[in-house]
Amino acid sequence: MNAESMMAVVKARPEPGYDYTSVPRPQPKPDEVLVRIERAAICGTDILLYKWDPLAQSLIKELPFIPGHECCAEVMEVGAAVRSISPGATVCAETHIPCGGCYQCTHGLPHICKNLVLFGHHVNGCFAEYAVVPAKAVYCLTTGLPAETACLLEPFGVSLRGVQEAAPEGKALLVNGCGPIGLFAIAIAVRSGAARIIAAEVNPHRLKLAETMGAHVTVDARQADVRQAVLDQTGGDGAGCVIEASGAVGAVATCLSCLRKGGRIVILGNPKGPVEIRDVMPDLMHKELTLRTLHGRRMYETWEQVEALLADGIVDIAPVLTHTFPMGRIAEAMAAILSGEACKVELDPRA
Amino acid sequence: MNAESMMAVVKARPEPGYDYTSVPRPQPKPDEVLVRIERAAICGTDILLYKWDPLAQSLIKELPFIPGHECCAEVMEVGAAVRSISPGATVCAETHIPCGGCYQCTHGLPHICKNLVLFGHHVNGCFAEYAVVPAKAVYCLTTGLPAETACLLEPFGVSLRGVQEAAPEGKALLVNGCGPIGLFAIAIAVRSGAARIIAAEVNPHRLKLAETMGAHVTVDARQADVRQAVLDQTGGDGAGCVIEASGAVGAVATCLSCLRKGGRIVILGNPKGPVEIRDVMPDLMHKELTLRTLHGRRMYETWEQVEALLADGIVDIAPVLTHTFPMGRIAEAMAAILSGEACKVELDPRA
Amino acid sequence: MNAESMMAVVKARPEPGYDYTSVPRPQPKPDEVLVRIERAAICGTDILLYKWDPLAQSLIKELPFIPGHECCAEVMEVGAAVRSISPGATVCAETHIPCGGCYQCTHGLPHICKNLVLFGHHVNGCFAEYAVVPAKAVYCLTTGLPAETACLLEPFGVSLRGVQEAAPEGKALLVNGCGPIGLFAIAIAVRSGAARIIAAEVNPHRLKLAETMGAHVTVDARQADVRQAVLDQTGGDGAGCVIEASGAVGAVATCLSCLRKGGRIVILGNPKGPVEIRDVMPDLMHKELTLRTLHGRRMYETWEQVEALLADGIVDIAPVLTHTFPMGRIAEAMAAILSGEACKVELDPRA
Amino acid sequence: MNAESMMAVVKARPEPGYDYTSVPRPQPKPDEVLVRIERAAICGTDILLYKWDPLAQSLIKELPFIPGHECCAEVMEVGAAVRSISPGATVCAETHIPCGGCYQCTHGLPHICKNLVLFGHHVNGCFAEYAVVPAKAVYCLTTGLPAETACLLEPFGVSLRGVQEAAPEGKALLVNGCGPIGLFAIAIAVRSGAARIIAAEVNPHRLKLAETMGAHVTVDARQADVRQAVLDQTGGDGAGCVIEASGAVGAVATCLSCLRKGGRIVILGNPKGPVEIRDVMPDLMHKELTLRTLHGRRMYETWEQVEALLADGIVDIAPVLTHTFPMGRIAEAMAAILSGEACKVELDPRA
Repeated sequence: MNAESMMAVVKARPEPGYDYTSVPRPQPKPDEVLVRIERAAICGTDILLYKWDPLAQSLIKELPFIPGHECCAEVMEVGAAVRSISPGATVCAETHIPCGGCYQCTHGLPHICKNLVLFGHHVNGCFAEYAVVPAKAVYCLTTGLPAETACLLEPFGVSLRGVQEAAPEGKALLVNGCGPIGLFAIAIAVRSGAARIIAAEVNPHRLKLAETMGAHVTVDARQADVRQAVLDQTGGDGAGCVIEASGAVGAVATCLSCLRKGGRIVILGNPKGPVEIRDVMPDLMHKELTLRTLHGRRMYETWEQVEALLADGIVDIAPVLTHTFPMGRIAEAMAAILSGEACKVELDPRA
Repeated sequence: MNAESMMAVVKARPEPGYDYTSVPRPQPKPDEVLVRIERAAICGTDILLYKWDPLAQSLIKELPFIPGHECCAEVMEVGAAVRSISPGATVCAETHIPCGGCYQCTHGLPHICKNLVLFGHHVNGCFAEYAVVPAKAVYCLTTGLPAETACLLEPFGVSLRGVQEAAPEGKALLVNGCGPIGLFAIAIAVRSGAARIIAAEVNPHRLKLAETMGAHVTVDARQADVRQAVLDQTGGDGAGCVIEASGAVGAVATCLSCLRKGGRIVILGNPKGPVEIRDVMPDLMHKELTLRTLHGRRMYETWEQVEALLADGIVDIAPVLTHTFPMGRIAEAMAAILSGEACKVELDPRA
Repeated sequence: MNAESMMAVVKARPEPGYDYTSVPRPQPKPDEVLVRIERAAICGTDILLYKWDPLAQSLIKELPFIPGHECCAEVMEVGAAVRSISPGATVCAETHIPCGGCYQCTHGLPHICKNLVLFGHHVNGCFAEYAVVPAKAVYCLTTGLPAETACLLEPFGVSLRGVQEAAPEGKALLVNGCGPIGLFAIAIAVRSGAARIIAAEVNPHRLKLAETMGAHVTVDARQADVRQAVLDQTGGDGAGCVIEASGAVGAVATCLSCLRKGGRIVILGNPKGPVEIRDVMPDLMHKELTLRTLHGRRMYETWEQVEALLADGIVDIAPVLTHTFPMGRIAEAMAAILSGEACKVELDPRA
Repeated sequence: MNAESMMAVVKARPEPGYDYTSVPRPQPKPDEVLVRIERAAICGTDILLYKWDPLAQSLIKELPFIPGHECCAEVMEVGAAVRSISPGATVCAETHIPCGGCYQCTHGLPHICKNLVLFGHHVNGCFAEYAVVPAKAVYCLTTGLPAETACLLEPFGVSLRGVQEAAPEGKALLVNGCGPIGLFAIAIAVRSGAARIIAAEVNPHRLKLAETMGAHVTVDARQADVRQAVLDQTGGDGAGCVIEASGAVGAVATCLSCLRKGGRIVILGNPKGPVEIRDVMPDLMHKELTLRTLHGRRMYETWEQVEALLADGIVDIAPVLTHTFPMGRIAEAMAAILSGEACKVELDPRA
């Protein structure tokens, strides 16, 4: 391998699997930066892409491409038009690359740009030794956070926004689904002063992690009725706020049935199928509820908030990061996740 | 008839129809007031009760009872424990009678009390010459609003909250369904400075009223594709806010598909059947939306706001009130509504 | 005069007065547009500049310059780098020209940019036949609003934000000071459903205009005690919200004393001297108040909102515009204002 | 001493000092509860009352009376009309006793009741073996928090509201004044993810405590220029939010000068003299700021929130509680505070 090539995880063909192979090292355009990846993390969509799930197929515009969007990296080179980023800076990539001209972009909401391009989905991502990122999708770290933590700021930001919108201060919170997003949310909610965090999950490893992260009550959703458990824990009122982070079929309806009148529900897990609400009067209309969906992090308020929250060690997310593999062992990393044993998994392109 | 009796509309049997008959005049308990009804208005649930619709049946706990909850009345007598209301006061009834002790009642949300009793549903209502109302469900008017207008403060308050939550200032607003609630919402949104109000409806009389109330664009939902019409009117962006006021099957999903990314949707119409959202990624998750359901008026902030809004004649709701009948002609009133010709219909118990 | 020159109002020397004279017609830089002024309006700071008031002196960086920032204009020519504006467009200038790189600019608050440059203060303004404006400080109108109305969107936007922050729905509102900003605020508050608008002012012409714009009660501040009047009108509670728009010495303290516990106060009038609050416990600490200052319009949400509000004729601001002069008669225009007779005065550069 | 008497701290005469003496044990009225004090804490106003400061004199309506309002207690007996509190419950007293009938009380703001009666100021307080408290001013604990911590929920709630209104997430926060209120605020802000907490104080013991509680930077206000220090720490921008908790003369103006444009300032310290703002344009008008004053805790949302925050040990407030004295040694307790050595001091009536 020479300076013109690099090793990368590649989605080469429209079928399950990833290759690990040598590809040309990219060159930054005038408004891009070239970064050397220090650490990358595997997200749910990377798994869907690996499995070549229909949802993943619908996202992808052309093959081959390099997946991965959660990363911590060092800036090696900046394009000629880039002003505010310097080589040597430690950065994360913001997955959402906005167009800059649509209604959302001109109204303070670039993260939900109408013409959104996704890093690691629509353009090559970070499961590689190097990557190019548009300067407008780069967040420069200021606190010396270690790479394995900084690498998780992106998904952690989703959880933070979820907790902010759920507003659990002094209330009972149901976190339904304890993957990394749900587990991060539990840890943040504990620090926000949630009065009672009820975590529901089907995977026993993750249920255990929920406890570690600070859930007051854990519900094994394979055995217990989540709604009944929430009612039991809340004197029959229901939870004042709910974060749905499982994406399971039927989960939104279940979560609505768990919500207290006047409550807030945030849906973070992409539903695996249509959302159907049958008991519309009690579960929807009489609840006087607020339901939010979120799509990523605000640019860059959320990043500033998550970095601050993690920099002081206020929230310890180490337990969620169960495995780290050399990037070349991507197949093992995927196997660890698919077995249900691993929770958050990171890849080290330099190991 | 004597001082001990009065004429009233009565739901006597578990079957379609209402009777108009003489019943005993009620006596106020210590915490109640006796009012003489000046004017009452027919709401959607009164129609469901008339038709003995399954939803109506599920609401009702025992027969016979007097329906009706929208009214303007004069206080005749107050119970021994009532302090803040005096005979002679002009009042409206708040439909929601809170328990006072539940979580919602002790947290500033009595209007969505866990143990809500509904005036005109669970207890006798206002389609009568006289009614008793718990003092805590009485709003005293302060502005000399005429009875035919004051009678509509209750539903108007629902529309006001809908517009407040939709926040249409400077934005495109879709009002889906132009019954009284939707029409009131249009009139309020015009005064709020909505940039473009698109009204969709299947009934041509109501579509015409939507225009009268200030809609910039009307869409005949029998013929046109509402989603396409909204996209056409908004440069392909979708409406920044949506008020669903039709309750039609499929309406929530349609409304979600009309919403701009980052938009707000308020559901006011009780859905006639399950809510199903099929295109979950584009219509729900990638929208980063805020969805609200509302159940009535805040007690009594909303009442204060609607009275102020109507007192100065800022909003003219007269066009929505298409018919007024003597209360004894309740059958004709119902027929006018069921024919689709009438919009809001009032009853005069003294005519 | 030829294509290379134009007539303009000029502040030429560090002393009271304005000249009306021929100056070179400006050329747009790559990121600027050249506009032909249809109508300009005189703002309070233009008067301070005319009088060469110390506050005005502190704002100004160099002489000579062309004052004026409120205008409606037609785009004649756009710089090479300007994409979203075309010749022929009808536009207003946003007075605040942001730097684009500071904290505020990168956090959705460019209107309070740290390095703000003010159109008509720091750079040449609109009291001329033509002007150049940076593209980022141009708002394109979409509704065909007449120039004499569009010309007032800029100050009207300040009033709109004031009312939004005061939140007078269903409440008593004190508007202290009935210049154009206060008068606009009254008209907007009426449409918002303020329950009772109390307007205080020392100028009898303006007090009369306050009534025209919809104030329920007017208080002649030369004769009456404003605080006592507010208490009388509010059952001794004080006003739920206050907009201070006079800038008078002592006005902030008076307004605080008029505020109900839990109220909101918005300061729009630039105080002519230090603000001093003597009764700190009752007027500040025990009030549990929210005080806001505002500096201009949000870019461009506020503009979108004011255009929508005026486009439908919901708010009629014509009475506030008492005089229009050919621009060459700037001295007469100033005299009309200084005499106290005129309220809002516009200049027509083409008359 | 017998069942009819108890020991209490008493303000007996209009002069400095407190007595510790035997007084009759109070009897609860029908809507009151009798509590046995487990622990009481000394607040700033108790010190002003001790010193017989003019502000304290203005608060007090008659002598003699028992001071003290921060406490944790056990319910011994409940009045005949009390439903929701039972003997044996562990409770705190809410200092603010609302009337129940005024505008604030009927609009969700009883804590700033127009006719507020203050426990330990207007009526006998908790520096005694027993106290009576109106049922509506009693908060029942649910979490088994130890008495020495529960005793501090009342002032801690003020700090929590201060931080909530300051909204320091991801921002630089100045806490000016590090008495218990400021120190609690620092600890809460750390957990909220404030990016940089700058604490300013004149007392070196308290400056040290600020560091212990998590301040990133401490400024000795006797030696350093607070404004300059804040600008240095924020790249010249100023702090995004400020909590003024010193009450020092001139502190509000200093804090305003430290605020970033668009920032939020919360004033918690009662200013010892008039508030004067001289540089009105840069420090007030051009800042586009939000200033809040707060008066106590929301009833009872704030209590629920602080109990949850402390119950899990998320925030450790032990370092702030520097001394605990038997209640009989009130004079020593006061001396410890007045010397500047003690920070928060508790009294144990049973030691």
